[in-house]
Formats: sequence, structure tokens, C-alpha cells
Amino acid sequence: MGTIYGLGLGPGDPDLMTVRAARLLAAAGHVAFFRKAGRPGRARTIVEGLLPPTAVELAMEYPVTTEIPVDDPRYNALLSGFYARWAGQLGALVEAGRDVVVLCEGDPFFYGSFMHLHARLKDRCRVEVVPGITAMSAAWTASGQPVTWGDDVLTVLPGTLDEERLTAGIAQADAVVVMKLGCHLDRVRRAFDRAGRGDDAWLVQCATLPEQRVVPLRAYERRSTPYFSIVVAHGRGRRP
Amino acid sequence: MGTIYGLGLGPGDPDLMTVRAARLLAAAGHVAFFRKAGRPGRARTIVEGLLPPTAVELAMEYPVTTEIPVDDPRYNALLSGFYARWAGQLGALVEAGRDVVVLCEGDPFFYGSFMHLHARLKDRCRVEVVPGITAMSAAWTASGQPVTWGDDVLTVLPGTLDEERLTAGIAQADAVVVMKLGCHLDRVRRAFDRAGRGDDAWLVQCATLPEQRVVPLRAYERRSTPYFSIVVAHGRGRRP
Ligand SMILES: C[S@@+](CC[C@H](N)C(=O)[O-])C[C@H]1O[C@@H](n2cnc3c(N)ncnc32)[C@H](O)[C@@H]1O
Ligand SMILES: C[S@@+](CC[C@H](N)C(=O)[O-])C[C@H]1O[C@@H](n2cnc3c(N)ncnc32)[C@H](O)[C@@H]1O
Repeated sequence: MGTIYGLGLGPGDPDLMTVRAARLLAAAGHVAFFRKAGRPGRARTIVEGLLPPTAVELAMEYPVTTEIPVDDPRYNALLSGFYARWAGQLGALVEAGRDVVVLCEGDPFFYGSFMHLHARLKDRCRVEVVPGITAMSAAWTASGQPVTWGDDVLTVLPGTLDEERLTAGIAQADAVVVMKLGCHLDRVRRAFDRAGRGDDAWLVQCATLPEQRVVPLRAYERRSTPYFSIVVAHGRGRRP
Repeated sequence: MGTIYGLGLGPGDPDLMTVRAARLLAAAGHVAFFRKAGRPGRARTIVEGLLPPTAVELAMEYPVTTEIPVDDPRYNALLSGFYARWAGQLGALVEAGRDVVVLCEGDPFFYGSFMHLHARLKDRCRVEVVPGITAMSAAWTASGQPVTWGDDVLTVLPGTLDEERLTAGIAQADAVVVMKLGCHLDRVRRAFDRAGRGDDAWLVQCATLPEQRVVPLRAYERRSTPYFSIVVAHGRGRRP
């Protein structure tokens, strides 16, 4: 029996991979990763040039990303069939004695697609998860300011929530992170304004990548933002 | 002019350091770290055996940890003098052309002592921060369950908050992390019960270290817990 490794790769800069991830990668036999059809795949891009030449690559192409709304039952059916199929294939490889490395952006257990394979495989074979630097750590580091001080509360909100929940979530926290922004940026901006934190929010795009950009959310001119974007508002707690 | 590096070391297992941190460490000239007087220092322990033999070590010993309550003005005065003195010493080294590596547990900008040096040095010299795996990532990985799914909201609470704020924070989130537990464990447990999440909370001690332990918070028999402890309650959001 082999092992499935859920390998956290961190936010993008390969230098921010852990020593353990780098070692597992350099010895990888089978390497699986998610991607949108016709794209290179974000996690795969991080490891470009780092896989052994003998590695067998398995591109797991999402059957749907934003073409169908997430609350449409067809969305769920398509994705659940997709995860079941790939769990079956990877499980069979492991049962045949192979190790399979699954590449994950950031930390595998934090809003990651790997979680859906893990849920289907954990009772069938050995699954090991290697944590990774989260995108939010990269974002607050890029902003040049600490995110939580003393007794600060940090809340992480998906930008997909409705405006009321976003506003309440922002109002109740000291430090705020918003992930999954895309076309939700306008609503997120309104929520920060309504919660009285409009001046504190920073938009961080492509943290740790060469095209990294940090701008006040207020000053950002467009209504949508690249997939690799996060909003951070810093806490202001106790500091001796 | 040299550079101050705020070096995130991750949760404890040196294998979970980033490739960049490992490289900076192997070439370090001056290495500074915080510790309680008479103790080896937690961050220093992580890098045991990894510093070059020529490294000059600077132990920054807290003048106070839990002997004076944090809301006593003397606590603040002692700590602020301490950070000012060390910022002065490290700043002088950097101005003399040295690089100084400051060892940080987890991620430097997430509830870290390094933040107080950073605040005093950032306008005086070049300060570079290397993000690290947070203790909470290590804790949810140790629990064997993903922490956030789909539209889940994650809230991170310091265990030092009062019971009302803890209860409200837990009730409003889907996934919850509580840090800085120590002697606050009983209050944290009551808050989970009052928020109706008493059965979902896991206590994770010494994540990634040989003595790692994961127990249901309910089943934990003692009223206090080692410094290296965290509580995690997992989200239960959308999963195809
Ligand atoms: C599906 S989640 C995956 C999160 C990842 N597992 C983690 O630990 O951070 C994808 C979201 O992460 C954020 N993200 C990932 N990489 C990023 C980067 N380099 N800069 C900014 N945001 C990033 C974006 O908000 C994006 O919508
Ligand atoms: C001052 S905070 C530092 C947090 C750190 N900068 C981070 O990024 O996680 C210290 C708290 O981190 C948590 N912690 C640190 N290392 C841990 C570990 N290995 N296992 C469990 N909790 C840990 C404990 O809750 C502790 O009270």
C-alpha cells in the first residue's frame, strides 16, 4: 500500500514551500493536481521545474468552475461525480503500491479542493497532509503590517457571502481577511464601508508572485479582481 | 546597512520550516530570539542543531511574562522598555552592516512578539518578514479534518477574552480556533458549551512535536493546558 500526500505548496513563491514539501516533491512518482480545462493549473505552476523528469502527471480537470451557479443542483452532481472518479483512480494507484502526491495551493485543509478527495479516501488508504503557508499569511506579510495584536479577534470571510453577513462579520472582528473575491469585490467593498472599516482594508493581488500588488481597497479602480486576490484589514490591539 | 529578518519557523517540527527560512538560517551571522528567563526559548529550540557554529546568539529575555497582570500599567512599561532596548541594539548591529535573524514561532505577523520590534525598526532599517506555517494550520492538520468548507466563516479568538465575547465569537462562526489557552481553558470550555458547540471542539497540544496530542475538549481532564495548545472546531459547510 502506498500513501496519498496532500502537499501544501504555500501561496505561490516556491521558496515558501516547506522543507518537507520540497523533499517529497523531489522524490515524487505520481503527481496529481487540479486545473481548469485548458489552463496549466495554479498548483502545477508553483512546482514548474521542480518535479523529477520521471514523474507521472495526472491533471484533474474540473468539469465546471463558474459556468453553473454553485446553488444549482447540477453543479453539485457534476463535482461530486468528478471527485468520486478521481478518488477511485488515486485510491487504485495507492492500493497498487504507488505513492501519489496531490499538489495543493496554500494549506490543503483551508478551503482546498483536496479536502473532497481526502473525505473519500481517508478510510480507504493512508493519507498524509503537509500543511502549507496560507494565502492570508502571504497577504498580510505583503501588506507590511502585522495582522493581530494582543487580544485581537481575526475573522476570515469568503467573499461569496451576502452583504449582510459580510457586514456583520467585519463589524464583529478586529482583524478581517476576505478570500474568494473575483466578481464579489463591489459587495465586499460596500460591506467594509457599512461596517465602518472602509479605510482599513487593503487588496492584495498575487501575494509572493512577481506581479504582487498591494492597494487600498478604496483606491482600487475595478469591480472585479484576479482569482489570486485577498482583502486584509489589520487589527489594532494592545501593543506595549 | 544590513537587514533584519523576521523568520517564521512554523509550529515546531523543523521540517515544516520554509525553504527560504532554512536557507537564511544556514547562513545566519547574528541570531536573536525571545525567551522566558532561565528557559531555552521555544523558537530557539526549533532550530537546535541548525545554526552555523559561528552564529552569534542574542537571547532576548522577557522582563515579565505572567507575574504581573497584562492590564497593570507596570506590565506595559516593563515590556515597552524591553522592546525599545532590543530594537536599539538590533538596529545598531544592522547599521554597522550586520544581518540579524530574529527567530519567530509560527508566522511572525500573527500574534508574534517580533511585531513589537518590527514596529520600532521598520522606519529605521530594512526589515524583511518570512511568513511561516501558523500553529492553527498545524493544529487542524493534526486533527485530521479540514477546517473550512465552501462558504464557512473562520474566527480566531484569543483565550484571554471574557466569557461573553468568547461565546458570541463561537456562536457567530462556522469554524473556530482559540489560541493562548493556558489557565483560560475552563472559561473557553464553558463558552463552547454555551454557544452549542461543546461537542465539536478539539484540544490540540504541541502540534507537530513528538508529544503531540489531540483530545475532544469535553474529555480533557485538567483545568489548564501547556502553552503550546490550541482549540479547533471545524466548519461543516458545502461539500459536493
Ligand atoms: C480555494 S481558496 C484556497 C486557499 C488556500 N488553500 C490557502 O491556504 O490559502 C483560493 C483563494 O485563496 C486566495 N489566494 C490564493 N493564493 C493567493 C495569492 N498568492 N495571493 C492572494 N490571494 C491568494 C484567493 O482569495 C483565492 O480566491
Ligand atoms: C504568541 S502566540 C504565537 C502564534 C504564532 N505566531 C503562530 O503563527 O501561530 C502563541 C500561541 O500559539 C499557539 N501555539 C504555538 N505553537 C503551537 C503548537 N505547536 N501547538 C499548539 N499550539 C501552538 C498556542 O495557542 C500559543 O498560546
